[in-house]
Amino acid sequence: TYSDKVKDHFMNPRNILREDNEADFHGIGQTGNIKCGDEMIVYIKVDPDTLTITDCKWRTYGCASAIASTSILSEMVIGMTLDQAYAITAKDILKELDGLPDNKVHCSVLGDKALRAAIDDYYRKN
Amino acid sequence: TYSDKVKDHFMNPRNILREDNEADFHGIGQTGNIKCGDEMIVYIKVDPDTLTITDCKWRTYGCASAIASTSILSEMVIGMTLDQAYAITAKDILKELDGLPDNKVHCSVLGDKALRAAIDDYYRKN
Ligand code: FES
Repeated sequence: TYSDKVKDHFMNPRNILREDNEADFHGIGQTGNIKCGDEMIVYIKVDPDTLTITDCKWRTYGCASAIASTSILSEMVIGMTLDQAYAITAKDILKELDGLPDNKVHCSVLGDKALRAAIDDYYRKN
Repeated sequence: TYSDKVKDHFMNPRNILREDNEADFHGIGQTGNIKCGDEMIVYIKVDPDTLTITDCKWRTYGCASAIASTSILSEMVIGMTLDQAYAITAKDILKELDGLPDNKVHCSVLGDKALRAAIDDYYRKN
């Protein structure tokens, strides 16, 4: 069964990208999950002086676990430096969510992988 | 990519069971998907005179494709006889949704399997 935090972030996901304003973001990262076929896209805005993440949005057609993981991740990273954000692992996310069912842990890696891809994309462009 | 109908039913799912009033339903069916670990529960109310489905609700922590499939299924079956509803296949649901990406078709079978389990449950109890 799912923790209250997972339920909350699934029912009321934070920081979903609702419109197509992708051009406003400085880094975009996409990743996919072979197991279930789902994809995740993460968008970040970066303050170039401090290399701090000022905004993080995301979008997926994945499951509740992927939604909750990336929702809470997006809250965690706003205000972090790129280095701090890059170091976040699925384990950190699971801890924040008070866990996930064992057979859904594979969904929690989508968000942090896509985030690292977005940070890589930012460095590539800047 | 996803059809407009899939997007609509994912963003605005119909007939989700929001409160725990399971006792009001006459049949409950649950199924799981080994591939991704997701589960689906479908609840039906049945008119005992006509054996017609008068209400159909559902709940899942599965993905957008599972949500959209079961959302549209729940609209299809209200007003059907139990026999008509039992005969619905994943193919019928895909047609109503204007398709799903190939690697997400496995998600569209959760709803109809859980519905048949709910119909079986109704017959077992009555
Ligand atoms: S990936 Fe699990 S139901 Fe779609």
